[in-house]
Amino acid sequence: MRHGQSEWNAKNLFNGWIDTDLSDAGVTQAHQAGSLLAETQIQFDFAATSLLKRAIKTLHIMLEETNQLYVPEQKTWRLNERHYGALQGVNRDDARAKWGEAQVHEWRRAYDVLPPQTQGHPTSITVDGKTYPAFDRRYDDIPETELPHGESLKVALARILPFYESVIVPHLQAGENVLIVAHGSTVRALTKHIEHISDADIMHLEIANGEPIIYDLDDQLVVTDKQVI
Amino acid sequence: MRHGQSEWNAKNLFNGWIDTDLSDAGVTQAHQAGSLLAETQIQFDFAATSLLKRAIKTLHIMLEETNQLYVPEQKTWRLNERHYGALQGVNRDDARAKWGEAQVHEWRRAYDVLPPQTQGHPTSITVDGKTYPAFDRRYDDIPETELPHGESLKVALARILPFYESVIVPHLQAGENVLIVAHGSTVRALTKHIEHISDADIMHLEIANGEPIIYDLDDQLVVTDKQVI
Repeated sequence: MRHGQSEWNAKNLFNGWIDTDLSDAGVTQAHQAGSLLAETQIQFDFAATSLLKRAIKTLHIMLEETNQLYVPEQKTWRLNERHYGALQGVNRDDARAKWGEAQVHEWRRAYDVLPPQTQGHPTSITVDGKTYPAFDRRYDDIPETELPHGESLKVALARILPFYESVIVPHLQAGENVLIVAHGSTVRALTKHIEHISDADIMHLEIANGEPIIYDLDDQLVVTDKQVI
Repeated sequence: MRHGQSEWNAKNLFNGWIDTDLSDAGVTQAHQAGSLLAETQIQFDFAATSLLKRAIKTLHIMLEETNQLYVPEQKTWRLNERHYGALQGVNRDDARAKWGEAQVHEWRRAYDVLPPQTQGHPTSITVDGKTYPAFDRRYDDIPETELPHGESLKVALARILPFYESVIVPHLQAGENVLIVAHGSTVRALTKHIEHISDADIMHLEIANGEPIIYDLDDQLVVTDKQVI
């Protein structure tokens, strides 16, 4: 599932790796998603999320709603939102005014187009007079060469896959139920991988905040059923 | 730290492994404890808690208050509250009326006295007309022979130590800061171990809900400073 609405989703800003909180509406979405999930009576064996609080809080609210707070959880930068490079903190309408509707659409939806890159790895960005860390100690263990300057969906998928293959897949192969709470672009990337969607078709896929997507997979991890609840 | 006040702490019931929620006062205590911890500016590298929601929720609230939700966390039955055997769900005053003040005091505070044992492993207990699971799927991986019927503090410490030695100690030896949120008796047991308190003296130690205890340890894990904030 994609996390509930964030403060910057609500303000129409490119969010990326900036660690913004859930909006009040986002908190409500997370509770509703958890409540819907509780009705399915799915018993989870493992949960995974990013290092960003909007996803972590969404996961915790859902685990509480399903009365499964005890489920083991792993937080990883590999499930972080796509890094939006120099677009982070920029209003989408301002971006359209500056670069044009078509260019912004391409940055948002194309599979293999990089957003404008950051110069190096800025320690913070300032939006509306407020300063946000851009990178901080939670990323200290990532080699400098792997830290993103601005990712396409393709680049994001490439850093998600090692985690998916080495951590998630073994749980699935053991017949376990896994709950993943991530972000708009990283859920898109995972969806592309799981459903074998083409580079062209992925442009048309949007992922809503706070709507659980349930996959049934067979022994070969082929999708046998998909429900959005 | 011991979790914030639980619903059964508030009702004066023996709680043990029954998975009761935080009371409203307990939620407030968790926020206050997190706020105090934020003032210390301690940066955590690892967090550990039990499989019981009153501890897990307390941990999550504290991580949010310190803006460190991204810290890796491990949940383990080895940090669960002491299993209180047949006393779970019993009102402490009722227990004193039935068994006497001295006996109940001994069950609560002595190091090596077992509480009344459960007959086998009941699947649920009923208190005030409400049914609570006694053991459920979260404990499926624990060998039957290790599942408690009712623990003394000594027995509880014996099942905490393998986790403390194999998981917590390596983090401490690496110079990391570790946040542990557990329970009244399991924090007492850990305190006995960390501070080398005698079997007799541990009888006099009480641990309050929601008060962080901060230890500084040297390279040999000897306590060089202790603060309760």
